[in-house]
Amino acid sequence: MFPQPTVLAAAMPDLTIFQYSVVDNIFSMTVATMGAAALFLFLSRSSVDREYRPALLISGIVVSIACYHYFMIRHSWNGAYELAETGYISTGAAFNDFYRYADWILTVPLLMVELVAVLRLQKSKARSLLTRLVIAAGLMIALGYPGEVISSPDGWMARVVWGTLSSIPFFYILYVLWVELTASLQTQPPAARKLIEISRLVLLITWAVYPIAYAFGGTEAALIAKAGGAVDASGIVALQVGYAIADMTAKAGFGVLIYFIARAKSSATGTDDERVDASQKVAQAATAGA
Amino acid sequence: MFPQPTVLAAAMPDLTIFQYSVVDNIFSMTVATMGAAALFLFLSRSSVDREYRPALLISGIVVSIACYHYFMIRHSWNGAYELAETGYISTGAAFNDFYRYADWILTVPLLMVELVAVLRLQKSKARSLLTRLVIAAGLMIALGYPGEVISSPDGWMARVVWGTLSSIPFFYILYVLWVELTASLQTQPPAARKLIEISRLVLLITWAVYPIAYAFGGTEAALIAKAGGAVDASGIVALQVGYAIADMTAKAGFGVLIYFIARAKSSATGTDDERVDASQKVAQAATAGA
Repeated sequence: MFPQPTVLAAAMPDLTIFQYSVVDNIFSMTVATMGAAALFLFLSRSSVDREYRPALLISGIVVSIACYHYFMIRHSWNGAYELAETGYISTGAAFNDFYRYADWILTVPLLMVELVAVLRLQKSKARSLLTRLVIAAGLMIALGYPGEVISSPDGWMARVVWGTLSSIPFFYILYVLWVELTASLQTQPPAARKLIEISRLVLLITWAVYPIAYAFGGTEAALIAKAGGAVDASGIVALQVGYAIADMTAKAGFGVLIYFIARAKSSATGTDDERVDASQKVAQAATAGA
Repeated sequence: MFPQPTVLAAAMPDLTIFQYSVVDNIFSMTVATMGAAALFLFLSRSSVDREYRPALLISGIVVSIACYHYFMIRHSWNGAYELAETGYISTGAAFNDFYRYADWILTVPLLMVELVAVLRLQKSKARSLLTRLVIAAGLMIALGYPGEVISSPDGWMARVVWGTLSSIPFFYILYVLWVELTASLQTQPPAARKLIEISRLVLLITWAVYPIAYAFGGTEAALIAKAGGAVDASGIVALQVGYAIADMTAKAGFGVLIYFIARAKSSATGTDDERVDASQKVAQAATAGA
């Protein structure tokens, strides 16, 4: 009934010039956003208190890793297609979905670390929390991948099953983070409280995009298109655009939010440098008075 | 009996799309991991005491060198293969094993230096230790290489001999490091002791992967596949994946461990900046009292 995927043509569905370019451009924009966020986070470390600098460092590393992967993702996208009379057609080279999963394997645990680092929870509490979150993140990503690479309409049910399995640790992470962020509100300085409430919301909204994008890429039409049937490939485009936007918000956007939380918590006590300035002024005044 | 390797075609066995992609993806992930570790180690120097910063600097350089080499290793891998109807076939260009050995020649001695630097052994002791370790590391790598490039089943015995010769300095290094790490435990602050015990274990486990990967790449099936006989190439895949995982753990993972040791030893006396803060407080108190 449906054309069977072959070794050479299974890879990617034919796309219109518009569809191909939308994905190509969003990938380029993601590279720029991640790189810019990395510069901001690395170079902002000196404007927060010493104890919050590791949180900014880790946030900067997260977007650096994502910057590398989106550069490679775009390279793979360009290699998977060539321009023909009818639009963009597959070159036979597969588009490498694994880049995104390699990125998630490395960055999702680090996202948990940056959040825990900026909250400055108790050491024993932070450790137990991180252990649970990192294990759940690993499971979430590992269970999603087998579904992601299915490219035959016969595999629709299998894709739904993998997606559902992956959703269990996904919702667990969101639940744990929501509860922890809410509980931590009491111990945070007032200036940071509002920001943590925002970050709770940003987390919920940006993370919600991932399963939605996954679902778009797994519609029957998308799988038929992936298998080489000339139907509607817009689900594939929606998946790529959805993931890219979610990654930008959940990594670069969230990183900037981490900076503002660190900044707000630093202001509560004054930054190291302000304290040094203040003590120098005291010393100068004392000298002047003597 | 077996097709003899020629200059152009000896290089690499045919691989399935899956086999090729596993190696390609693990190389990309290694590039990302090494780069991320380099950023972390370079930018974390300010959060440890001055005397431990050289250890982090060297650790950062080690992963930077590895990042470059894995980028090149991947480039060579991509150049050695092309996609055909049956999977990936050799282009005739050889896969360059020397990148990995060049990496080891540069990084293994530096790994010894970073370990000795973070332990802060007595100067005379450190010098004699390093001399012995660096010579042994050079011998280990130089003796392993002739076996690595053998790509004919006739050379199986020769590969075993080179591998065995290379194992002598390999075990010597592990023995010396184990003894030294154990002896150093007494002079280390309690906070660092647990971490040094962990690093002793990490060293033993990650280094054990190298000879195992070497053995996988030297099975008769692997050598026949390398020589162009269409048998089972999974040994070749196991060697590449094994080396990549071992390199990630022994360099990036070990570097992060070095950071934690440095951090633990810094906390034992307070970081430079904390000491500055404390001395300022003393100065302020003195001024206030006067």
